[in-house]
Amino acid sequence: MSGRFISLEGGEGVGKSTQATRLAEALRDRGVDAIVTREPGGSEGAEAIRDLLMQGSVTRWSAHTEALLFAAARADHVEKHIRPAVEAGEWVICDRFIDSTRAYQGAQGIDDSAILALHAFGSKGLLPDRTFLLEVPQAEGAERATARDGAGADRFAAREGSFHEAVGAAFDRIADAEPDRVHRIDATGSPQQVTARLIDALSDLLP
Amino acid sequence: MSGRFISLEGGEGVGKSTQATRLAEALRDRGVDAIVTREPGGSEGAEAIRDLLMQGSVTRWSAHTEALLFAAARADHVEKHIRPAVEAGEWVICDRFIDSTRAYQGAQGIDDSAILALHAFGSKGLLPDRTFLLEVPQAEGAERATARDGAGADRFAAREGSFHEAVGAAFDRIADAEPDRVHRIDATGSPQQVTARLIDALSDLLP
Repeated sequence: MSGRFISLEGGEGVGKSTQATRLAEALRDRGVDAIVTREPGGSEGAEAIRDLLMQGSVTRWSAHTEALLFAAARADHVEKHIRPAVEAGEWVICDRFIDSTRAYQGAQGIDDSAILALHAFGSKGLLPDRTFLLEVPQAEGAERATARDGAGADRFAAREGSFHEAVGAAFDRIADAEPDRVHRIDATGSPQQVTARLIDALSDLLP
Repeated sequence: MSGRFISLEGGEGVGKSTQATRLAEALRDRGVDAIVTREPGGSEGAEAIRDLLMQGSVTRWSAHTEALLFAAARADHVEKHIRPAVEAGEWVICDRFIDSTRAYQGAQGIDDSAILALHAFGSKGLLPDRTFLLEVPQAEGAERATARDGAGADRFAAREGSFHEAVGAAFDRIADAEPDRVHRIDATGSPQQVTARLIDALSDLLP
């Protein structure tokens, strides 16, 4: 039986990485074979591209170059890691996927249709079986991200507040447009509470 | 006055690098401000992407991932180096450009229209004012490339003969389809003879 592909999305500091790990553990507790991966990166080649994307100054790459690099990293990740795992019956929990590119590059003025065209080219348009948009009030997310990163924020986290507002608005549009795939999750409260909400929102897919 | 953008194309071992340098020198002798650049690479960011593209095993990247990485490198090169130089009045001589991607990725089964769509997205579809397709009998080019590279052939030069035949056929199709832009140049004989042919084929553009 083929596995499932689940992505966790949202702005900085909403707890995606923590919840990806916790969700996989909760699935394994239920007898589901689950692995965690992340973007950009997740395969050997994609991690090398990730280094180019995350390091350097905010202006190192134009928005168009950046979109092409994300599409290349994703193509490698999908081909080498995600598709083989799902075909082998595993559940793949991915910390960020195509919707992050749509939100972050979209907030820099790249057309959503152009980003989806690159995704169609590189990754045959693969979409998750379910996407969870983790939501906290924006000030809280920014506070968590700052507490986590300190002076070590990457090229994306280091951008100003208005950029992160545009990213949030873009995620909202995606969730509104694709309610069957994208489920909003209240990410406030304890990690245990949030994981319980995720498992609850997966109940229809669980064996 | 704006400068000109000239690309040199062709298979392995036809003398593109040598002729790019010689052509720029010949132009400078005629009072034309000319610089040489190359692809993949040519700007700081694009050279970092070049390292990913040229190193590793032949199968490191899928053809689709490779096409996205080439488009990203080119977008950076065009934005940071080629366009500013041409706008400043320089002649830019580029050792390989979009036609190499069309020929090499096309030989791996990627549609020409898809490659041109990536180029439109990343580099606003910039085409050279003139492209020279350097031609030698294939056996001669392979011999020159082997003599040059020895055991150090990169991921492209290391491929088998039938691949290089497909690349040559793709270059032929491009030259047949775009005769105004793409001029075929006999690249046999001495370097001096070939440079003289290039200058001759540029006479209508020279001041």
